[in-house]
Amino acid sequence: MKLSQNFVKTAKQVGHEEVAKNAQLLIRGGFLDKGMAGIYSYLPMGIRVISKIKNIVNDEMLNLGSQEILMSSIQNKEIWEKTDRWSDENVDIWFKSKLKNGADIGLAWSHEEPITQMVKSHISSYKDLPVYVHQFQNKMRNEIRAKSGIMRCREFIMKDMYSYSEDENQHMEFYNKVIDVYNKIYSKLGIGDITYVTSASGGVFTDKFSHEFQTICDAGEDNIYVHNDGKIALNEEIFDDETLLKMGFKKEEFTKQKTAEVGNIFTFGVGKCEELDLFFIDQNSNKKGVYLGSYGIGISRLMGVIVEIFSDEKGIVWPENIAPYKYVIIPIGNKGISKSEEIYDSMLKKGIEVVLDDRKESPGFKLKDADLIGYPYQIVVSDKTMENSENVVELIKRSSGEKLLLDWTTIN
Amino acid sequence: MKLSQNFVKTAKQVGHEEVAKNAQLLIRGGFLDKGMAGIYSYLPMGIRVISKIKNIVNDEMLNLGSQEILMSSIQNKEIWEKTDRWSDENVDIWFKSKLKNGADIGLAWSHEEPITQMVKSHISSYKDLPVYVHQFQNKMRNEIRAKSGIMRCREFIMKDMYSYSEDENQHMEFYNKVIDVYNKIYSKLGIGDITYVTSASGGVFTDKFSHEFQTICDAGEDNIYVHNDGKIALNEEIFDDETLLKMGFKKEEFTKQKTAEVGNIFTFGVGKCEELDLFFIDQNSNKKGVYLGSYGIGISRLMGVIVEIFSDEKGIVWPENIAPYKYVIIPIGNKGISKSEEIYDSMLKKGIEVVLDDRKESPGFKLKDADLIGYPYQIVVSDKTMENSENVVELIKRSSGEKLLLDWTTIN
Repeated sequence: MKLSQNFVKTAKQVGHEEVAKNAQLLIRGGFLDKGMAGIYSYLPMGIRVISKIKNIVNDEMLNLGSQEILMSSIQNKEIWEKTDRWSDENVDIWFKSKLKNGADIGLAWSHEEPITQMVKSHISSYKDLPVYVHQFQNKMRNEIRAKSGIMRCREFIMKDMYSYSEDENQHMEFYNKVIDVYNKIYSKLGIGDITYVTSASGGVFTDKFSHEFQTICDAGEDNIYVHNDGKIALNEEIFDDETLLKMGFKKEEFTKQKTAEVGNIFTFGVGKCEELDLFFIDQNSNKKGVYLGSYGIGISRLMGVIVEIFSDEKGIVWPENIAPYKYVIIPIGNKGISKSEEIYDSMLKKGIEVVLDDRKESPGFKLKDADLIGYPYQIVVSDKTMENSENVVELIKRSSGEKLLLDWTTIN
Repeated sequence: MKLSQNFVKTAKQVGHEEVAKNAQLLIRGGFLDKGMAGIYSYLPMGIRVISKIKNIVNDEMLNLGSQEILMSSIQNKEIWEKTDRWSDENVDIWFKSKLKNGADIGLAWSHEEPITQMVKSHISSYKDLPVYVHQFQNKMRNEIRAKSGIMRCREFIMKDMYSYSEDENQHMEFYNKVIDVYNKIYSKLGIGDITYVTSASGGVFTDKFSHEFQTICDAGEDNIYVHNDGKIALNEEIFDDETLLKMGFKKEEFTKQKTAEVGNIFTFGVGKCEELDLFFIDQNSNKKGVYLGSYGIGISRLMGVIVEIFSDEKGIVWPENIAPYKYVIIPIGNKGISKSEEIYDSMLKKGIEVVLDDRKESPGFKLKDADLIGYPYQIVVSDKTMENSENVVELIKRSSGEKLLLDWTTIN
């Protein structure tokens, strides 16, 4: 894209009511627009980042054998009543509305119940199991407070996956695979080394248990205790003498860290499917409840966490895998401008993700904007860089500030 | 995909409350799941069709110079009050809810107001215009009746585009381009020759005018009058003596046709932007209201219309461009099964969109299923087809029933 064609303008400041660093930077950089507290819209650069995170996650879900679906946001009260999750006392984040005939509807904050209802038409025998489905869907949650930017929104994009298995064995095989795959995803997103799997509640031997994926992040809302060997971490709720004794650890071997949850996985056991009347006939012709698991990754939340972690006083520093574009070309002077067009066209033809900053602004403005937006590499083209050879440009690495003169035809 | 890996099962029948042919076929074929009246979810085959329609539309929007964004579903009451479209008397399809603090919110049925609010940060001078943005977004509309399957839903996927221009000239240039591009889209979707642009209300010389794109379809909710020369059509509302006199036509030169609306485009003039306080400074330093247009295509509705048109007593007959997969391979007998695996692997490697029906079902069942799902081509592999040469298969064209023996290595 040529930036002169981009309708979005970056901003020096945002309204003082926006207190979260991630939202401040994303609004200033032109990735997001704020509708109201906890409600954001995605501008073109923001969509690109979201799409890249989605694609990384989707590829791994498909590799796991999951199939993509898309459930509605409008949900049926009756289904949620069956599992006693309709009332505001039990679930206090519902947005609810009414059809013209007065019937109550809910707006999706999760999908265990509707997806279980949907798969009922497709599961009757052990031969039909396991079933894995996932979606990228807008969730709406009526949060009391929404001050963490896109780390906790009233409307957000989530990947949720659901597994339907014959029994605990079949379930656990998949559940453990998901842990590995989630870790792989966080590595691809550049946060692998600061993300921990933590057992969230209960033990693995109870019917309902869960794990969280927690990333070290100052803006996070959680705390975990990381063992000094750097491999094990415990959630705050279970960091007690009893757990430590069971595991053979001492309190002083752990360091408390502020973290943001970037994923969670749940085991529901057979209870929920039984409540929703989803049974199957096993190999011995016995009727049994289906074993349910659910697996979430907040896509927009991840974008927020990544910005909190990968940013400095100048702006965002995107990991290459999810940067909106890898390169920005910044021309200086007339010779720089015509050369830049040539470089831009050639890079586009090679399929490289590049923008050309052809706006009528000063080089200083453009460099500052590039720092704010956080392209991994800036390519400066000027009389000075072309002094000795007309193919020489200056490549500035956003993360380190490192500068390098090189032949632009070698960039890929 | 190997169909043994697909969790979705086709169905012989659907509940009698589903009266629309498009939804009946799409549910039976395993594309859709019905949550409640007017609320559907998309299963894997359904997602594929939706994605293909989206991609065709998105490519053309990007070619027009529009940028993709994604607005929130949750909307601010205050913005809609400014244009007097919040009250249920003026807009009778709102779904509304409340934040925890009691503040009213609306669920997106359209986006003119919020998008105009959003672009205010980015438009101040004539140099910033025109601006074109579009999105693929879930719209929610509280319809009283919802009996047309996915042709009229309470929640549906829509492409909506918005244009912000300096004046009527700049606006009309784009508006007319959109008409051409919409026609191109309908041609790509296989309904070009039965889709008409109709002037919907007012004339082109009033401030507010609009056009509709109407496709001849028995299940449609509209009527148009098509001129015998096949090039001009008029909406029912403006098919009167006055209009005919102006245009120099006679009533008897027109034939009434039942149609479904597959797109609409609106000119708002400067009124809405003025109400929302979006002005710009023109070349002569005068403050002016921005000229607004909006351009919709119902993506899920199109899928429904296409199924209504391209289907027969056996099932759906997808146009090639948007079929979930182009080919299904149906093996018969042991030799057919092993050969099919070879053909499937080879076609996948070539990047051909193909499924292998490796389910433990009879060939008759699989052929019926293939007819129902509507793959454009069925490839039958059996002892019989391989009689003379082991590379010979039978290719059945879904639309005509035509059968052809040919060497599978020539298929692409």
